[in-house]
Amino acid sequence: MSDFPKAIRIVEQGPREGFQFEKQPVPTVAKVELIDALSGTGLSQIQTVSFVNPKMVPQMADAEAVVAGITPKPGVRYTALALNEAGIRRALATGRLDLEGFVSLTASEAFLLRNQRQTMAESIEKQRGAVGLYKAHGIDVNRVSIMAAFGCNFEGDIPVERVLDLVQAGIDIAAGHGSRIRQLNLSDTMGWATPRTIRQVLEKVRARFPDLELALHLHDTRGMGIANAYAGLEMGVSTFDSCVGGLGGCPFAGNPAAAGNVCTEDLVFLCDELGIETGVSAEAMIEAARLAERIVGHPLPGSVKTGGTLARRRAAIAANKGVGQ
Amino acid sequence: MSDFPKAIRIVEQGPREGFQFEKQPVPTVAKVELIDALSGTGLSQIQTVSFVNPKMVPQMADAEAVVAGITPKPGVRYTALALNEAGIRRALATGRLDLEGFVSLTASEAFLLRNQRQTMAESIEKQRGAVGLYKAHGIDVNRVSIMAAFGCNFEGDIPVERVLDLVQAGIDIAAGHGSRIRQLNLSDTMGWATPRTIRQVLEKVRARFPDLELALHLHDTRGMGIANAYAGLEMGVSTFDSCVGGLGGCPFAGNPAAAGNVCTEDLVFLCDELGIETGVSAEAMIEAARLAERIVGHPLPGSVKTGGTLARRRAAIAANKGVGQ
Repeated sequence: MSDFPKAIRIVEQGPREGFQFEKQPVPTVAKVELIDALSGTGLSQIQTVSFVNPKMVPQMADAEAVVAGITPKPGVRYTALALNEAGIRRALATGRLDLEGFVSLTASEAFLLRNQRQTMAESIEKQRGAVGLYKAHGIDVNRVSIMAAFGCNFEGDIPVERVLDLVQAGIDIAAGHGSRIRQLNLSDTMGWATPRTIRQVLEKVRARFPDLELALHLHDTRGMGIANAYAGLEMGVSTFDSCVGGLGGCPFAGNPAAAGNVCTEDLVFLCDELGIETGVSAEAMIEAARLAERIVGHPLPGSVKTGGTLARRRAAIAANKGVGQ
Repeated sequence: MSDFPKAIRIVEQGPREGFQFEKQPVPTVAKVELIDALSGTGLSQIQTVSFVNPKMVPQMADAEAVVAGITPKPGVRYTALALNEAGIRRALATGRLDLEGFVSLTASEAFLLRNQRQTMAESIEKQRGAVGLYKAHGIDVNRVSIMAAFGCNFEGDIPVERVLDLVQAGIDIAAGHGSRIRQLNLSDTMGWATPRTIRQVLEKVRARFPDLELALHLHDTRGMGIANAYAGLEMGVSTFDSCVGGLGGCPFAGNPAAAGNVCTEDLVFLCDELGIETGVSAEAMIEAARLAERIVGHPLPGSVKTGGTLARRRAAIAANKGVGQ
């Protein structure tokens, strides 16, 4: 019935993807404080910043200062997003980051045209160059990421066959530079996935690419985030991107707690209840989520930080009965 | 892999359970306005008010006035909660409500003692009287409802065997008054369920009581509401209680959008995407949720009302392509 992994890896994206969406500038020290707090939760990987054009993404203009301010914790990988030569150079110059090369493809040409002014063919060609660039800087490329894999606001539903073709294209691009793809990250960039489409797409992906490790990058735009993560766990997905507190939502006027990325502490809570190891302390992550709320100055959408964990409830009940501490 | 029903029935609980939790008084006209708006969404059943002691639940002191104010829509059943002789008499006196008798049991004795000052045995005895009371007023009893069926803040995890025993007890109580139980409603009163426990409990319930129609009353306390609903759909659950906008959360100081009951429009959206009929228009329900937000004066936790439906996106895409309207 289900194929739960014994353990999953959570890649925290809050400091990068989350803050990027905030309208108000977030002070560098606050970013550093949150990253340091996240370092103490048991997370093994934190995406800290992106090295992009500060004119396009002003929230990331202080990327170098943020990275310089972190107190690195042994066992934690600090990564960053860098998509071009300038970005890679900036990231490498920090001397503190673990860069990961990847082939970034997009399943919707309408989205590509709108957001990157590229056709599908141009995007694939461009990724050949990007992989060459990573390799030239000694960065291994072992992941294919596919954006809009489950649907697109500008194109609609995405045929599974197109996703499968893009996975193969990504594998081929990497192979052209002597790299072997080990992981596939499917991104529900615009929140189109449901548990059913997660299952449908992953079943076909697993059938055609049985050796690929699966990762999901989920948005909670329509409230399906945790249900989709559960469907992913049932399909054996072993890596999840997520954001502390559910950071990453556009701050809608009417609802300051509008949904962003799937929420890290809610995902950790779910895994705790399913007996799936994450290495992350839900309680510590809840504290980090509260810090994130103080930093952004508005409520974040995650639920467990208000509802509390069941582990804590069970401990309190045991203590009352004189069984526990 | 899944046993999706073709159609489900949604029992809207927002006006009753939702408003009950609001700290600020809600004007009678606003309650009536919301019920009338809900009547236009395609819902077939709306729980309007509860007839309880106004000293205990001041938000329901105007129950008669609310019911008198509704503009009944043909095809919609307007129900109310009445748990004792006085309540039943008040509800019947309105002449406008469709009362449903049910056996109400609770799987946690710790919760019973705390909230109703009853032992398990006393609760079962009391329900014998309640069923007699419904029958004496000509109200059929065909449902067993079990509160705290998945866990309890004061007792912890609930053994499935206890739930099964209570279902049998409920069936026996009804049979003692010549009534046959057709539906079982399992309530996750304190938000302890996960998709896994939903599946575990429902599998055992279905094995032992294969003829019972299954209903779920889910709370989203820890963000698992929609994932739990999906697990329920996979197990063939055909009736869901839910609240427009996700009404029903305690308004936490720090997070005005704290989770309450599972959100009706998010559930409708999920069913639409799965091809499961609800009879409810997601767009009309989103409008009702916005009205509910204006009435309570704070954001409600539902996601689809900010994220928008995919049906609307698809229609817009088709229109742009000149395919649609």
